[in-house]
Amino acid sequence: MTTNSSIHPPQRLLFGPGPTQVAPSVYAAMSQPIVSHMDPYFFQTSEAVQDMLRTVFGTKNPLTFAISGTGSGGMETAISSLVEPGTKVCVFANGFFCDRMTEMAKRNGGNVVRLEKPWGEVFTDAEAAEFIAHEKPQVVMYVQAETSTGAFQQGTGICKAAHDAGALVIADVVTSLGAMPVKVDETGIDIAYSCTQKGLSCVPGLSPITVSPRAAEYIEARKTPNRSWYFDLKLLNDYYKVSHRYHHTASATLFYALREALSLITQEGVENRWERHRRMHHAFVSGIEKLGLKMHVAPEHRIVNLNTPRVPEGVDDAKVRKLLMDEHGIEIMGGFGPLAGKVFRIGIMGPLATPEHVENFLKVFANALERSRTTAAVSN
Amino acid sequence: MTTNSSIHPPQRLLFGPGPTQVAPSVYAAMSQPIVSHMDPYFFQTSEAVQDMLRTVFGTKNPLTFAISGTGSGGMETAISSLVEPGTKVCVFANGFFCDRMTEMAKRNGGNVVRLEKPWGEVFTDAEAAEFIAHEKPQVVMYVQAETSTGAFQQGTGICKAAHDAGALVIADVVTSLGAMPVKVDETGIDIAYSCTQKGLSCVPGLSPITVSPRAAEYIEARKTPNRSWYFDLKLLNDYYKVSHRYHHTASATLFYALREALSLITQEGVENRWERHRRMHHAFVSGIEKLGLKMHVAPEHRIVNLNTPRVPEGVDDAKVRKLLMDEHGIEIMGGFGPLAGKVFRIGIMGPLATPEHVENFLKVFANALERSRTTAAVSN
Repeated sequence: MTTNSSIHPPQRLLFGPGPTQVAPSVYAAMSQPIVSHMDPYFFQTSEAVQDMLRTVFGTKNPLTFAISGTGSGGMETAISSLVEPGTKVCVFANGFFCDRMTEMAKRNGGNVVRLEKPWGEVFTDAEAAEFIAHEKPQVVMYVQAETSTGAFQQGTGICKAAHDAGALVIADVVTSLGAMPVKVDETGIDIAYSCTQKGLSCVPGLSPITVSPRAAEYIEARKTPNRSWYFDLKLLNDYYKVSHRYHHTASATLFYALREALSLITQEGVENRWERHRRMHHAFVSGIEKLGLKMHVAPEHRIVNLNTPRVPEGVDDAKVRKLLMDEHGIEIMGGFGPLAGKVFRIGIMGPLATPEHVENFLKVFANALERSRTTAAVSN
Repeated sequence: MTTNSSIHPPQRLLFGPGPTQVAPSVYAAMSQPIVSHMDPYFFQTSEAVQDMLRTVFGTKNPLTFAISGTGSGGMETAISSLVEPGTKVCVFANGFFCDRMTEMAKRNGGNVVRLEKPWGEVFTDAEAAEFIAHEKPQVVMYVQAETSTGAFQQGTGICKAAHDAGALVIADVVTSLGAMPVKVDETGIDIAYSCTQKGLSCVPGLSPITVSPRAAEYIEARKTPNRSWYFDLKLLNDYYKVSHRYHHTASATLFYALREALSLITQEGVENRWERHRRMHHAFVSGIEKLGLKMHVAPEHRIVNLNTPRVPEGVDDAKVRKLLMDEHGIEIMGGFGPLAGKVFRIGIMGPLATPEHVENFLKVFANALERSRTTAAVSN
């Protein structure tokens, strides 16, 4: 029996915040035979991945590679690398993933202080400067593209204030990488981590990460060992880049997939790709506003590849999602936490960021909305 | 461009300790379209994986699933779950992976004591009982199948002594699972973890783990949070089994692959599979001894799917490995640490555990050995 017998997944159109649609050639890459984690071909593949990751990250950082875990594994790698018992950490908290960062920093013994904003807002440069100058942290953390709210902040002001105070900056770029300019070097981010299944249009399983020379020095000099062995950047750097000394069995299959996904991005041109996502975002917003919906985030602070229109009054958002899934195999997600029932989370990314897909989506979405109005309520 | 363009791996015959050869239908499974980590089909797939994992582990433990990381991620999951600052930990140390366990236990704040044996030997029940009774640990750790040495110890005596002392037992079954009877329940193991790319004949990327009800209770009652958020079994259990609350973006692709690999094992019958590996082990050893080599491990303590014949005197082991790779695309590994240059590590697993493959391997191996003798030395 040589053909696939046990796997019969339904066909989905993944319009959620991720995972998103994957190109056929990425699937084809994963059907190629594996080599071992010590094979020269594995390291060639990993080198190619590193080079292309530098382009999408916007960095010259030598220490740039993919971690064998999902985006949250990248988050744990970044935080466990910089946060030791007693490290003073400032978190800019305006969504779900800032809370996750907070939790991880605490588990690593960090002394965490937070500046809070409502979900969907971002921080001004003045707010960032005042908070950091007052708290004098060693590490500053923010989320560039908040998957839970749809809000984007480049982070330039945060990074400047942090560096003025002698602190290092960790940025979550899980949702921006590949679809928006992350600009690691220009922004001044010291460690940025991401995932493969959103803006890179790959399957999940790896977490791209990049580390500035300054952060790499700090990690080299830290007094206590990383609490995590699996996510220890010193050991990972030695495996991927320095001596190729065995650390863990990296999955050739996932590296093939990521290499192919990045190759597709390189072929399109990363700036073309960002521009395509920006255009499709505006097409989507224009369409959604014609349907009478309002976007949750102010226009200048929106993630372009993940949209959060507000659920109109008198609409049952769970019913909308169920209709789309049951009738069209379309996945979108709802809000959660303070935004539960209040927003939809709709990703327009990768192979689905085309005029045809946006148009088709808006059509079936409008139909599902109409059929999900509760009788008592007035439309928005 | 819809076909794979960037991935052209060399064809290998993976006769090393892992990753090992993967069946075509497992590759086919990975070419199926992904669903999200919150899709009902993902949870169906995960449930099917859990059921089949219980069979290969030999357990009824409800808490049995696959971690989104490699085998070392499973190790960190197990250790960070049971070891808190001050926890007294006994390690049975007879190879490389016991050292890794030691390191992780220390990073979690454990107070670690070790009983040492030369690489390739195992511990008697009396030695286990005396060590544990003397040290009175809360956690005991051992490696059931030591990939670095080729030695196997079921662990029944270790588990009994540990339970008599009120301790919980972590066993590394990375190399035994799928190829040998692990017998989690019968042996008395509290947490066993493994990988996908050895005895299960799947690609790397996930780590199967199983947790006894006793260990699950201990984890529920522990006073400090797990130092790792990514590997926190409480959160993972909630995602996989209880509420399906979002934790991380599990990779549908890797779960498809593991489901298909386990389905192939189920079709063969797990006991037939163990027996096949046992038979091919004996065929291999018989052949290797005819070539004049000696096995490093005593016959009654050998891993059946990973063989460690000693490098004969006067043979350059690196040259043997290079000849096999260059001329046949065959990967085997050498020894390392105290066994560097002293043993070969040759896996006879999964699709390669057949009479034809063993015979062909022995033929080319004999040829490579002959051509790697150094002129000055006398053959063994």
